[in-house]
Amino acid sequence: MRIDQRESADTLRPHALHPHFTRQAMGSVLVETGGTRVLCTASVTKTPSWLSDGGWVTAEYAMLPGATSPRGRRDAGGRGKEIQRLIGRSLRAAVDMSALVGPNGPLSMVIDCDVIEADGGTRTASITGGFVALSIAIERLMREGKLAASPIVRQVAAVSVGIVVNGTSKERASLLDLCYLEDRDAVVDLNVVMSGDAEGPTGLIEVQGTGEHGDFSRGELDAMLDLAEGGIGRLMAMQRRGLEESRA
Amino acid sequence: MRIDQRESADTLRPHALHPHFTRQAMGSVLVETGGTRVLCTASVTKTPSWLSDGGWVTAEYAMLPGATSPRGRRDAGGRGKEIQRLIGRSLRAAVDMSALVGPNGPLSMVIDCDVIEADGGTRTASITGGFVALSIAIERLMREGKLAASPIVRQVAAVSVGIVVNGTSKERASLLDLCYLEDRDAVVDLNVVMSGDAEGPTGLIEVQGTGEHGDFSRGELDAMLDLAEGGIGRLMAMQRRGLEESRA
Amino acid sequence: MRIDQRESADTLRPHALHPHFTRQAMGSVLVETGGTRVLCTASVTKTPSWLSDGGWVTAEYAMLPGATSPRGRRDAGGRGKEIQRLIGRSLRAAVDMSALVGPNGPLSMVIDCDVIEADGGTRTASITGGFVALSIAIERLMREGKLAASPIVRQVAAVSVGIVVNGTSKERASLLDLCYLEDRDAVVDLNVVMSGDAEGPTGLIEVQGTGEHGDFSRGELDAMLDLAEGGIGRLMAMQRRGLEESRA
Amino acid sequence: MRIDQRESADTLRPHALHPHFTRQAMGSVLVETGGTRVLCTASVTKTPSWLSDGGWVTAEYAMLPGATSPRGRRDAGGRGKEIQRLIGRSLRAAVDMSALVGPNGPLSMVIDCDVIEADGGTRTASITGGFVALSIAIERLMREGKLAASPIVRQVAAVSVGIVVNGTSKERASLLDLCYLEDRDAVVDLNVVMSGDAEGPTGLIEVQGTGEHGDFSRGELDAMLDLAEGGIGRLMAMQRRGLEESRA
Amino acid sequence: MRIDQRESADTLRPHALHPHFTRQAMGSVLVETGGTRVLCTASVTKTPSWLSDGGWVTAEYAMLPGATSPRGRRDAGGRGKEIQRLIGRSLRAAVDMSALVGPNGPLSMVIDCDVIEADGGTRTASITGGFVALSIAIERLMREGKLAASPIVRQVAAVSVGIVVNGTSKERASLLDLCYLEDRDAVVDLNVVMSGDAEGPTGLIEVQGTGEHGDFSRGELDAMLDLAEGGIGRLMAMQRRGLEESRA
Amino acid sequence: MRIDQRESADTLRPHALHPHFTRQAMGSVLVETGGTRVLCTASVTKTPSWLSDGGWVTAEYAMLPGATSPRGRRDAGGRGKEIQRLIGRSLRAAVDMSALVGPNGPLSMVIDCDVIEADGGTRTASITGGFVALSIAIERLMREGKLAASPIVRQVAAVSVGIVVNGTSKERASLLDLCYLEDRDAVVDLNVVMSGDAEGPTGLIEVQGTGEHGDFSRGELDAMLDLAEGGIGRLMAMQRRGLEESRA
Repeated sequence: MRIDQRESADTLRPHALHPHFTRQAMGSVLVETGGTRVLCTASVTKTPSWLSDGGWVTAEYAMLPGATSPRGRRDAGGRGKEIQRLIGRSLRAAVDMSALVGPNGPLSMVIDCDVIEADGGTRTASITGGFVALSIAIERLMREGKLAASPIVRQVAAVSVGIVVNGTSKERASLLDLCYLEDRDAVVDLNVVMSGDAEGPTGLIEVQGTGEHGDFSRGELDAMLDLAEGGIGRLMAMQRRGLEESRA
Repeated sequence: MRIDQRESADTLRPHALHPHFTRQAMGSVLVETGGTRVLCTASVTKTPSWLSDGGWVTAEYAMLPGATSPRGRRDAGGRGKEIQRLIGRSLRAAVDMSALVGPNGPLSMVIDCDVIEADGGTRTASITGGFVALSIAIERLMREGKLAASPIVRQVAAVSVGIVVNGTSKERASLLDLCYLEDRDAVVDLNVVMSGDAEGPTGLIEVQGTGEHGDFSRGELDAMLDLAEGGIGRLMAMQRRGLEESRA
Repeated sequence: MRIDQRESADTLRPHALHPHFTRQAMGSVLVETGGTRVLCTASVTKTPSWLSDGGWVTAEYAMLPGATSPRGRRDAGGRGKEIQRLIGRSLRAAVDMSALVGPNGPLSMVIDCDVIEADGGTRTASITGGFVALSIAIERLMREGKLAASPIVRQVAAVSVGIVVNGTSKERASLLDLCYLEDRDAVVDLNVVMSGDAEGPTGLIEVQGTGEHGDFSRGELDAMLDLAEGGIGRLMAMQRRGLEESRA
Repeated sequence: MRIDQRESADTLRPHALHPHFTRQAMGSVLVETGGTRVLCTASVTKTPSWLSDGGWVTAEYAMLPGATSPRGRRDAGGRGKEIQRLIGRSLRAAVDMSALVGPNGPLSMVIDCDVIEADGGTRTASITGGFVALSIAIERLMREGKLAASPIVRQVAAVSVGIVVNGTSKERASLLDLCYLEDRDAVVDLNVVMSGDAEGPTGLIEVQGTGEHGDFSRGELDAMLDLAEGGIGRLMAMQRRGLEESRA
Repeated sequence: MRIDQRESADTLRPHALHPHFTRQAMGSVLVETGGTRVLCTASVTKTPSWLSDGGWVTAEYAMLPGATSPRGRRDAGGRGKEIQRLIGRSLRAAVDMSALVGPNGPLSMVIDCDVIEADGGTRTASITGGFVALSIAIERLMREGKLAASPIVRQVAAVSVGIVVNGTSKERASLLDLCYLEDRDAVVDLNVVMSGDAEGPTGLIEVQGTGEHGDFSRGELDAMLDLAEGGIGRLMAMQRRGLEESRA
Repeated sequence: MRIDQRESADTLRPHALHPHFTRQAMGSVLVETGGTRVLCTASVTKTPSWLSDGGWVTAEYAMLPGATSPRGRRDAGGRGKEIQRLIGRSLRAAVDMSALVGPNGPLSMVIDCDVIEADGGTRTASITGGFVALSIAIERLMREGKLAASPIVRQVAAVSVGIVVNGTSKERASLLDLCYLEDRDAVVDLNVVMSGDAEGPTGLIEVQGTGEHGDFSRGELDAMLDLAEGGIGRLMAMQRRGLEESRA
């Protein structure tokens, strides 16, 4: 039994997507996983990219001060920048930039991930939700004639896994989708981003593992990747359901 | 008939409060008025204030980039700072600082107002919602024994009014609770913050009126203040209902 | 009798304008009101404005560190920005932007208001002096053939008023043109900017009233606006004399 | 044959350590790997850490402008911060913070990694060299009586691996220790930090893999980790030789 | 005949000091030399100095935007910082820091030099005026019992000299106290700060000479220093007259 | 005998140049003088200069944190900016900007001076080394056909001199090429930059002398300039040898 009453190591926290949570942005979704809630919006900007001949996708990540207790500061500094670079890279892997071009030229898109409430796993929730906000925006651009075809070439979702040491037995256990309390005590922290299609995960996009207070073995890495793959498969199903709902 | 289909000059937009919208902060509420939605959270910080012998209340205001179309920038600059100074002053008028003192000394509170969706009137919605978030937090502090009695000495709410010129007749009309399109075309913009009690508004706290493209008369100022007082009375009733709901 | 020996609630402090105080800027004036002295200069810049098809007027406001005791810091932060936004808006109300266009295109003007000595009312003195510096610069641009006609459509001046509570009788009194000591103790602070012509004030441009430690009534607002209108009438006469002197 | 004439996928570039490259810092080493050269210095600072009851180790990473062609900018922004966080975490894994305490209290150490010449792999060279600079400084602190025993609990070194696609055959090949040209064209980029002892690598500390233009398989990840482990073993031997030389 | 109608190479521009130009600061003077006017104020701050066991003197220098045509920017950047470091060093040479100590401990003083109008020589005018503002403040501190004796050990004044090339004859001429037009065309620019007593200059404090478009000879340096010494003697007489006037 | 065992007042510390210390930049040299080591690199940038119709040369100066004990901060602030302005001016005196123009237009060059180890005289070593890095880069540009002829019109080198007071005899002595300990205790600090040709120094480019704790006489200035001229002559010989070696 886990600290937040989950039954097993490979159980995801309750998760849900609320498409069209806001209406001003081209696409938006509120993604919830346990006590973590992130508002993801996708906007088209005029800034051309000098990093690509075609279009470009970038991300911004921030945590509202009231999202944590005690209250956080508005400027997350280096940590926030590192996270938004990860989100941006992950979402770009979903897109064929040469096809993100409309009748008036290449399109630049910004995915804003604002954490409204934080209970662990905010960066992976941002990626999972950000993909849906991006997809909703792309579909709207297509309906509005600003894109002829979808530049999205693969589904992208993410989850965190980690290793927690039992206080009494000192046994190390790999756990899926860490909540804040598990994350705080984890000795290894691994964020996994995967690509997929309707059948489920197909490949790795990002693997970021850190031994916070020591090292970990190749076998432990494998076990964690297995857990992550299972969880991401379920999150990808949630993404597909959310996108369908957004079209209704 | 107004541009957003409201029937008359003194009609408020549909408005609602959602208390406890998030759970990490000491108090929180999502306030909606028309297409404007602001998440207000109240947190206790350790920073002591050198501005008061007793407690202190301060505010921060920001707009999520995806709250507007086209997308805004994360750093609102001088305009954001000016707005948060207004919110802070208005909410401090509701509080007896010498009574914002718990068993361990004076308390400093921060009210964060994050605009999730913007359609005009974000600063007045922040004040109206911020008062409720602050009140919820105060009640929780009392329940937790961190405050003996409530330091809140009056209810505070705010609304915008303005003068719009009819394109054909050139007649000037005072309107209550401007939506974005009305605000953009208004020749006079007035934000009014009032104090009140269970009977309704009792006095003025802030009056900020600007002739954007010319001047306005004393008579017009009076007409706008009348409209504001009526609207604020209805918003104060909403605040009281929201607080009651938060206690359930 | 007031704290600085003025005889009545509606007496302005001794005031004076010194046109052409400096010679490098296109227009300049040193404005004095009581112990407050502000150097206002008007310059033409090359920066085009994206806020107007015609010309544009903006303001910058700063306080020299030695203007106060104890010494202030050079960067006034949010407060300074808020004040310069007020000055800019007020001076723009005096100008028809579509007529601020010379033979080579639209003109952008910056009015710099540097407080050399501060004793209350620096923002309103900046507006009153800034209008004169702007007018002197406009007249010089016309003499130099850089403007065919004056784009100034109305006179603009400002004054502060407030409510002070008598320490013994607890009576509230409205006072015109607060000095620093009155301003520090005022319970209501109101800055009023008005338009006018040769006959005196004609309309309101900005009304910014704040209940610093509580609220105020509609009747008190009216009394303060009456005081302000009287004072602004006398300041507008000073402006006209100063402009005449500048032409000599 | 690789682009820089290396014979095989698992060949490291020529590498060397120059201990005591500078004399002002407590410990220093110039680490070279191919065309990449990083000056690592270890200094003791007075700043106490609030992140640990014992001592603390942090890192700073920067690239001299002339280290690249074309010239880089002095402020590397978010990327530099992300890299120095990685270096800091990796080096902390080598140290028992509770033992980084001298007679006068806990010690804070800063490892500065300044890239003098960049040809790929600067962050992993910084970790490999930073461990040696840190070790030299620790030994000097012990000789000077400022530490009773060494707090270093494991050896730490790092290397980059990646997958490059052959332009003609489209075959994907895993390569060890990418030079700049290989890195630029790699479709997967993986940085691996490992712990070890005199026998060689013993566990993983950091695994950061990114599919720059697509995804990669679990099998490819395994192959890359095998390459990394081999390379890190040889780098750890170089570290031990460098440390021995530093004692001479 | 010089470009501004001065008769000879060793003629100073018309110069004057206006003590007590403002009243809030502990000491103040407006110094004029030709078209250059600088407001110097001296304030006591609470910030203790970690650079001295006794008191400390520092300077800030800024140019009002309207002081030049075209208008300057408010933040003078590196150039402003370099100038204020020069002013601070020069004024510290006038003071025995161990004697800048009052009954309640060491005193920190800030000399603010704000250029109101610029026509060359603003940094040397700041030093000459700054010494007088500092002296006035010291005398007031003594009158108020905050200092037992004057810590001023020598008089300090400064002037600029330079070499200008005649457009036709190509002859090089050393000139005293360059105005802006001379300074702009000078091939050598030399700022000289000297110490002195009632008899005149006694020694060098700062010599900063720059060959802007080439080099200069030892003989030319000597000729310029002769000119500077003569000018500084006359400025020191002005300082003594200004101080006497300030005591009246 | 001097504190670092040098035999006489006019002895330079051991000095050396290592051309081509790095290979990415267009030109590079490591300059050593005593315990001071500076890496100077010269790069061509695309940024056009608005300060010159022809080419332009600018400099950046920074000290690695580990270059000093105790460790310095990465951002040197105002002092660093002042030094890089001095280096830039000095190196520009060596170049005819109208000739720093290649087939594709004017060239902008940046000389980066990064202090790897600091023991006094870092700014003068930067100028002496920077001239060599610049010259190496110019020669390479000529070999690569990017410049038809050398725009270098004179040799430039620099040295520090100063006056130190004997602790016992209180005699003042002028010393050449101060090491850190001498510099720390010097009462006068003078940096001298000179132009020269194959015969030795020919003129002054910069003279920056400061009486740190008092004043100095014209005679002392002359004695220091004599010392500087002698030292610069020897450093110019070293520059010529280094350049010759760089061509081998």
